[in-house]
Amino acid sequence: MTSTTTLPLADDLGRLVDPSRVLTDAAALAAYSHDDAEWAPFTAPLAVVLVRSTEEASSVVAFAAGAGIRVVPRGAGTGLSGGANSVANCIVLSLELMTAIVEVNVDERYVVVEPGVINNDLREAVAQHGLWYPPDPASFRISTIGGNAATNAGGIACVKYGVTRDYVLGMTVVLADGSVVELGRRTAKGVTGYDLTALMVGSEGTLGVITRLTLSLLPLDGREERAIIGYFPSLTSAGEAVAAVSRAGIVPAALELIDSTCLRAVDDWQGLGLPHGADTLLLAKVDERGSTGDELADTLAAIFEAAGGTGVERATDAAEVERLFLARRLAYPALERLGPVLTEDICVPRSAVPEMLARIQATAALHDVVIANIAHAGDGNLHPLIIVAEGDDAARARAKLAFDSIVDDCRALGGTVTGEHGVGLLRLDGARAELGERVLAMHTSIKTALDPAGTLNPGKGF
Amino acid sequence: MTSTTTLPLADDLGRLVDPSRVLTDAAALAAYSHDDAEWAPFTAPLAVVLVRSTEEASSVVAFAAGAGIRVVPRGAGTGLSGGANSVANCIVLSLELMTAIVEVNVDERYVVVEPGVINNDLREAVAQHGLWYPPDPASFRISTIGGNAATNAGGIACVKYGVTRDYVLGMTVVLADGSVVELGRRTAKGVTGYDLTALMVGSEGTLGVITRLTLSLLPLDGREERAIIGYFPSLTSAGEAVAAVSRAGIVPAALELIDSTCLRAVDDWQGLGLPHGADTLLLAKVDERGSTGDELADTLAAIFEAAGGTGVERATDAAEVERLFLARRLAYPALERLGPVLTEDICVPRSAVPEMLARIQATAALHDVVIANIAHAGDGNLHPLIIVAEGDDAARARAKLAFDSIVDDCRALGGTVTGEHGVGLLRLDGARAELGERVLAMHTSIKTALDPAGTLNPGKGF
Repeated sequence: MTSTTTLPLADDLGRLVDPSRVLTDAAALAAYSHDDAEWAPFTAPLAVVLVRSTEEASSVVAFAAGAGIRVVPRGAGTGLSGGANSVANCIVLSLELMTAIVEVNVDERYVVVEPGVINNDLREAVAQHGLWYPPDPASFRISTIGGNAATNAGGIACVKYGVTRDYVLGMTVVLADGSVVELGRRTAKGVTGYDLTALMVGSEGTLGVITRLTLSLLPLDGREERAIIGYFPSLTSAGEAVAAVSRAGIVPAALELIDSTCLRAVDDWQGLGLPHGADTLLLAKVDERGSTGDELADTLAAIFEAAGGTGVERATDAAEVERLFLARRLAYPALERLGPVLTEDICVPRSAVPEMLARIQATAALHDVVIANIAHAGDGNLHPLIIVAEGDDAARARAKLAFDSIVDDCRALGGTVTGEHGVGLLRLDGARAELGERVLAMHTSIKTALDPAGTLNPGKGF
Repeated sequence: MTSTTTLPLADDLGRLVDPSRVLTDAAALAAYSHDDAEWAPFTAPLAVVLVRSTEEASSVVAFAAGAGIRVVPRGAGTGLSGGANSVANCIVLSLELMTAIVEVNVDERYVVVEPGVINNDLREAVAQHGLWYPPDPASFRISTIGGNAATNAGGIACVKYGVTRDYVLGMTVVLADGSVVELGRRTAKGVTGYDLTALMVGSEGTLGVITRLTLSLLPLDGREERAIIGYFPSLTSAGEAVAAVSRAGIVPAALELIDSTCLRAVDDWQGLGLPHGADTLLLAKVDERGSTGDELADTLAAIFEAAGGTGVERATDAAEVERLFLARRLAYPALERLGPVLTEDICVPRSAVPEMLARIQATAALHDVVIANIAHAGDGNLHPLIIVAEGDDAARARAKLAFDSIVDDCRALGGTVTGEHGVGLLRLDGARAELGERVLAMHTSIKTALDPAGTLNPGKGF
């Protein structure tokens, strides 16, 4: 008998999938060791396996379970919490090659896809059939739909149209013992048994490996987008405008905030011609048609002005709307150019947005760190981005203090430590404090019930 | 030592809650033995306890768990699947007295309520603040919000606005050992840990007793209701119209079907002046404002006419809209007057509605039973109602065969055995067949993880 670590692992895996899709060279192990979260720890995997089917994924998980090896599932590795970071004694199971769009059902408005399909590829494929998949994380051009489901990804459209969970009707899942189950349904409604689909969504690969998804869709037509933008003299005045929109009972199709640090970073990089003097930009969208849309846009513009917004204007030209929202989507990569970014994902009650933004500024000053802010402000979902210069260990230590302080403030204001990125590795402490002992015990008992050996993505999520 | 069954149970319970709220007389035990499902089995409880607080519910569950007694939670007992039916050696734990509306938060658009609040009381309370709670089961005037959550209730508005789960942000839950947990959040988004709130919703009291709920709300304003009605020469032609609406990419605010048996029953009872010659009525609603609403109503009317609808008209008068939808809501109680009703709750793909309706008619003929049809047709959620004369055992046997045959046809067409009523006791066989062995094992392992002694609502749901 040999111990598991001395097994000729690549040979074993090469009997389960084509050997060309078993990677064990150092460069591959390094590349698949972590996602896009700075700061989260990782250990190189024993091997990376790129599967092409549910059957292959099942065989790899069954093999790993039998051999006492851990499995870390992975899509495109664009996560920002370390949820796909590899751990000791693990195989990274990559779903990135499973990119088939299996069925677009126009009558029932659903699509069946493999998990490696890029969010934007899905959007474009269903758009050809007059259908729309709303959840649009900022990573929509690079993140996979399987990863979106595993983290219950949000995005800009969520303020009106909901998050990934709201669109996942059903899925094929490889469980921790390698068995394959079909969860959920393809009908508009259904309450047969526990909602295991919802349990899997957002479980960060700790309960199963998603190998196929059925996603509900909306009609693409029937919306007319109008953008309303405004520049605000301070973060908090922009926050006041956000709270006022909520108070007015308006549900915009988007309500995003970008602060001056982000605006400068994007413009320096991409030269979009954004005004450099502005402090904070609010970008709103409404998508009601005709006079209803006009009235809503007018109301939003009035709210922006009443809250101190200047340069308030309405963009109805599609290219201009696109350009402004492009700045929002480019904010994260633009800031990454400045140094390692420690990304917060707090979500507070909408009315607490001004107070939370004020506390973030105070925290930045107290700990002498640069904190840029982008936010799905209409959801109260803020992304304070803590940036430190490469190699500055003292700054790193201060950044960690600032991170924890922001989490504490968020919880004190009735918020949650992660709105859409997931707990992963970065938010374990905050999540534990938020959930409390008895709810954590529920998590542990469910995890143990479905994965008694702890095979799937150990150490993540709670 | 005495065995649990010889304990002076009422005395014990009377130390946990005021003795006036511990019921053990025969009439009370009978009244609390079952919900509104015909046909589902039940056994009288040992006692009924009406709790007034989370603490009381916790103490009763902890006591029962310690004494080896089962607990069957109950709201108003309006369920149609036997989910609240009492079982051997159980206490019925009624939440009906917990009727407080704890907080209406206008800025954040949520309401915090106790579980015994009647759905319509909730609607009226939040309407005073300009807010709207969309899920509207036909029982909305008599069913509790706790029961709605435990069954993930649907309703007429769901075709556009989603089901109960989509509005439950968080809850207080008494677990099987009597411990109390807070699940979920009050923010617009949040992905901290597993979605245990979604797991509880629709779990039919088998995983916990919901003692408080935080529900998200929509603005009440901004909608203008227009009704479109049409009479069809047959069930299947009405079904074709439903499928055509879906194909056209329209998401109506309601799309209900009522067949001739229901129409006659309602009119005979309430004298609403409905036309007796009609076969099947389709009732649609759109709620977009202004010209957008007008155009959608025109399109729906045209689709109805193209599918063979006659007497197609548009009701814009609120009272007329209300009267027509009242007929839909009264259909179930009207039919109950004709004899015990065995209620199906199948949900099929929208495009399969015509075929499913045809098969239901064939089943009625084959088994010589009366089957009336009401349906949330726009969701593909059909309620074939099998009616037998009181005391006709032969008809009861035929009805049971028809019930199973309809379930089989539904599953053959890609449907699910319960769209919104829950599995309860009536649909256990169908649910088992639909879920399959491995998914059932997941249910069992989760149930065992959270309720190892099987205290909560044993035998229900899967």
